[in-house]
Amino acid sequence: MAGAGARSVTILGATGSIGASTLDLIEREPERYDVVALTAHRNVAELADAARRTRARFAAVADVACGPELADALAGSGIATGAGPEALVEAARMGADWTMAAIVGCAGLAPTMAALEGGRTVALANKEALVSAGALMTAAARAHGATLLPVDSEHNAIFQCFPHDAPERVRRILLTASGGPFRTMDREAMRGMTPAQAVKHPNWSMGTKISVDSATLMNKGLELIEAAHLFPVPLDRFEIVVHPQSVIHSMVETIDGSVLAQLGLPDMRVPISYTLAWPERMATPCTGLDFAALGRLDFEAPDPVRFPALTLTRDAMAAGGAKPAILNAANEVAVAAFLEGRAGFLDITEIVLKTLERYDPPAPGTLNEVLGIDARAREVARGALETMVA
Amino acid sequence: MAGAGARSVTILGATGSIGASTLDLIEREPERYDVVALTAHRNVAELADAARRTRARFAAVADVACGPELADALAGSGIATGAGPEALVEAARMGADWTMAAIVGCAGLAPTMAALEGGRTVALANKEALVSAGALMTAAARAHGATLLPVDSEHNAIFQCFPHDAPERVRRILLTASGGPFRTMDREAMRGMTPAQAVKHPNWSMGTKISVDSATLMNKGLELIEAAHLFPVPLDRFEIVVHPQSVIHSMVETIDGSVLAQLGLPDMRVPISYTLAWPERMATPCTGLDFAALGRLDFEAPDPVRFPALTLTRDAMAAGGAKPAILNAANEVAVAAFLEGRAGFLDITEIVLKTLERYDPPAPGTLNEVLGIDARAREVARGALETMVA
Repeated sequence: MAGAGARSVTILGATGSIGASTLDLIEREPERYDVVALTAHRNVAELADAARRTRARFAAVADVACGPELADALAGSGIATGAGPEALVEAARMGADWTMAAIVGCAGLAPTMAALEGGRTVALANKEALVSAGALMTAAARAHGATLLPVDSEHNAIFQCFPHDAPERVRRILLTASGGPFRTMDREAMRGMTPAQAVKHPNWSMGTKISVDSATLMNKGLELIEAAHLFPVPLDRFEIVVHPQSVIHSMVETIDGSVLAQLGLPDMRVPISYTLAWPERMATPCTGLDFAALGRLDFEAPDPVRFPALTLTRDAMAAGGAKPAILNAANEVAVAAFLEGRAGFLDITEIVLKTLERYDPPAPGTLNEVLGIDARAREVARGALETMVA
Repeated sequence: MAGAGARSVTILGATGSIGASTLDLIEREPERYDVVALTAHRNVAELADAARRTRARFAAVADVACGPELADALAGSGIATGAGPEALVEAARMGADWTMAAIVGCAGLAPTMAALEGGRTVALANKEALVSAGALMTAAARAHGATLLPVDSEHNAIFQCFPHDAPERVRRILLTASGGPFRTMDREAMRGMTPAQAVKHPNWSMGTKISVDSATLMNKGLELIEAAHLFPVPLDRFEIVVHPQSVIHSMVETIDGSVLAQLGLPDMRVPISYTLAWPERMATPCTGLDFAALGRLDFEAPDPVRFPALTLTRDAMAAGGAKPAILNAANEVAVAAFLEGRAGFLDITEIVLKTLERYDPPAPGTLNEVLGIDARAREVARGALETMVA
């Protein structure tokens, strides 16, 4: 039971991996947190269980069809329920001090925006919020006085090292990249790579989509876009450093020649706890690093010739407007096609490139325009895929 | 010429390596600094030249015999001069906003204390201030409201990563050590090592005394003592990590499992500039790190059996009182004997151990008592040396 002075928290996307890690941290110190709302896509059983355990006030599923099942599961608990996209926005609008925005994909845009409009603290794990709607989201955060704290290990590392009161002191931001499973492979060999080979990420256990993004380095390119929205530093000061062990999560070099880094084990509870306790820190069960056991850390320059996603993403960010949203949507279509055996590994970035060439709408001014661009970019990408495969 | 709003600075030990690096930084932006006083041991020519270039108000030499030569060299310049230990203290008392305390050895204690008593900012490069008189110096800093900023690359790195407003958030402080030239050597092989072999430090260009300390790891042990005085964290939370490339200058692990690190090239202008610009940062000509060119960073556990200095220093700090001052004085005698061929490499820590066993005075309450303990410990160490060699 939450104690006096407890912090009110909402988790948008409570049954995914980030949501589960967030619940793990909150449930270790239940007296410190007052859970306002939890949402899920359609995992009713897990959502209802978490809502009862944490004595949440409201639980919502994105899928309207799951609404009755959720209402049944929570009948008699005193926990209100809701279903559908508006219910997610309602959850985000309940005014929690701290909101974890961890809904996957464009479905997370409206609830994330609603949370930012509340003017409190938003821990951001939804990629599309910054990749596809970065200008809108950061403008909303500024307008409503919300604090946006990045959850991704790389951005969280930069946030921990960044001189927030004086960004002009930053000379370079060094985003580290594992290099993925094809780090040392030449381009011809990549051509024949299968989905099974592409999803073997060396350091983190992740879903298949993001694992393919790690193999193309598209993931790192998308993180570059997110970083450029989060940190007020010119794009040319962002560099990617390949670091296969992923122990250094990212670095910031200042104008005096100092390089500050945040390091850690691949446990998402570390960055999540940072956003939860910010501007303080909280004890976690996460162990630190045993450097003698690690033995060594390696570094390489990234190769934009073998990994064209690096240039594609940087160019999209430099162009701005709708480009990053188009790139992200096209990449999702291309990766899905690759995973289903309808496109080769090297086709992924080709499809993205062709989509960017064929579709060039003006910059979106609203979230609805972002969603329209996302939908249209998927159609264009499917068209590009058909031409290529034909 | 210093401009309006310039910061007044004094350099105690202006002609040594740290002093020269400090002058290099100050002379790049002369309008920002108003040089109050410069001191040297007996390098009159260099001191007079620096005083004229920077338009210092006062220049002093430690060696009284050099006084007339300094007065001659600065005749007609309008720069006042002084000579002898009191002149160094006078320089420290002239009320500069920022003082670099870089006098080597126990000769630096009184001027450093005088600077701290001024209640301004003191950049500390003198080792004895914290190793031999740590309790007195930190008490003086607190009593007079002075800010003590460490210059040593390791301590400066910890300072950059340390949560100063909440030290209870620190789980471990990881002091990195190059491991020295005998890092992988077994103890029997060390026995026959010559001074020439011991002074080959892998990463930093240093004087012979400190190079030998790097070979015994006594240097790292003395840094552990300094760190324990600088950062309010229990001694058992300080760990040493061997990191041969010395690129990571040190690290701080927090209670959430984050590890923060400061990295850089071996250029002392980086930490000096940090103390000079603190709490801001200033642009320096120091380049950042090229991680692809570095290629790899290695880590090992330190071996207290092959390097007994690690245990000796930790035990001396745990015991406190006069022990660290005795250890430091005995080590200076032992290293001098080794460099002069009067003791073997393994004798160094043996002499220190014997001195600590034979001499156990109460904790010093004044700087004069520290100086007395230092002098007596040297006699005891010489006695121990004679018994061993005999």
